[in-house]
Amino acid sequence: MSTTPTPRTRVIREPHRGVYDRETLYKILDEGFICHVGFTVDGQPFVIPTGYGRIGDNLYIHGSAASRMLRSLDKGIDVCVTVTLLDGLVLARSIFNHSMNYRSAVVLGKAVAVEDPQEKLEGLRLLSEHIIPGRWAESRQPNDKELKATLVLRLPITEFSAKVRQGPAIDDEEDMAFPTWAGVIPLEVTAGEPIRDAQLDLEIETPHYVKGYSRRRL
Amino acid sequence: MSTTPTPRTRVIREPHRGVYDRETLYKILDEGFICHVGFTVDGQPFVIPTGYGRIGDNLYIHGSAASRMLRSLDKGIDVCVTVTLLDGLVLARSIFNHSMNYRSAVVLGKAVAVEDPQEKLEGLRLLSEHIIPGRWAESRQPNDKELKATLVLRLPITEFSAKVRQGPAIDDEEDMAFPTWAGVIPLEVTAGEPIRDAQLDLEIETPHYVKGYSRRRL
Repeated sequence: MSTTPTPRTRVIREPHRGVYDRETLYKILDEGFICHVGFTVDGQPFVIPTGYGRIGDNLYIHGSAASRMLRSLDKGIDVCVTVTLLDGLVLARSIFNHSMNYRSAVVLGKAVAVEDPQEKLEGLRLLSEHIIPGRWAESRQPNDKELKATLVLRLPITEFSAKVRQGPAIDDEEDMAFPTWAGVIPLEVTAGEPIRDAQLDLEIETPHYVKGYSRRRL
Repeated sequence: MSTTPTPRTRVIREPHRGVYDRETLYKILDEGFICHVGFTVDGQPFVIPTGYGRIGDNLYIHGSAASRMLRSLDKGIDVCVTVTLLDGLVLARSIFNHSMNYRSAVVLGKAVAVEDPQEKLEGLRLLSEHIIPGRWAESRQPNDKELKATLVLRLPITEFSAKVRQGPAIDDEEDMAFPTWAGVIPLEVTAGEPIRDAQLDLEIETPHYVKGYSRRRL
């Protein structure tokens, strides 16, 4: 279901790339796992990378980004959460038509600190399962002290947009004969061979969620 | 040479991960090629992904991010440019000690639009060569109309910090016997098989900068 963009979320540049349906947005949010959180302190914007999870129409953001926002967190803080998936480099005949294939998501709104310990724990579980599905249950669970030391923010997904560019280079007609290579270099985040902890008991096998780790969700 | 962080760039959370020397900063900026630019319009922060290049102590940022900033660009606009390189997922015995290996760079300052056509062209060349070294000279060069349609921002690198986390999981002593796998899943941006443009002359060979494409710089 497509929603109507607000003046703040409408894609201005390359407007044909703007996408405003939750299905596309959630696919992007679910494939990525690092967001860049933007917020303003004393007029200065800050952009900090951090992990996140999603359930329904709420994002849970790891509070590692929040150290500078702490003063304002009680009443909520205006944020922009951006997730970018880079799919390739697009080489056109002309410099001007060079591009990238990407899918990006932007969510605007007020992030608030999650106070309820149960919701906080659930937010952290979502965040963990979002990054490595299956890992949470096999780890030593957070204790009260750790839970208190961790900040989790909740951001309702109400104002948002996505931007998508896929496919081959699009050159002007008069450039088609220009004698240079054109095409796409696909890019992907890939996992290498897992590195066992040096102190790990030799009898512990590498779990499936480590061996088969991949970000592909689509 | 290490510089003194300002109150705005000093790393607050996990301060031992803060790095303030230009050498480390420039290595991160040179290996990445997508930055997330943060800026504020009417009190609302925005975070937009875009390409960039660097020469000496200046960043050149592609103006695709600038559509919303245009009103303020004449006098310069306060931005935060963040570049994040994700190197791996760190699985500890406890949920609390899970982490990521990463290198991130943050540059704060006033970005201004580059007006001089020669500097603009040079900024675009830097940006292009930063993403695909060798490509600029083999492409159809920008004409005046295209150059006018492209916005390039210059940001002097004066106020900055980097944050680096590398290495194995660090668990609390009392968790070391917890029976779960621990270690690192390395992550990397890798290039797939290049996709030739369907209309490309069969006699044009795939150039070395396409065939051997890699982001590794270190």
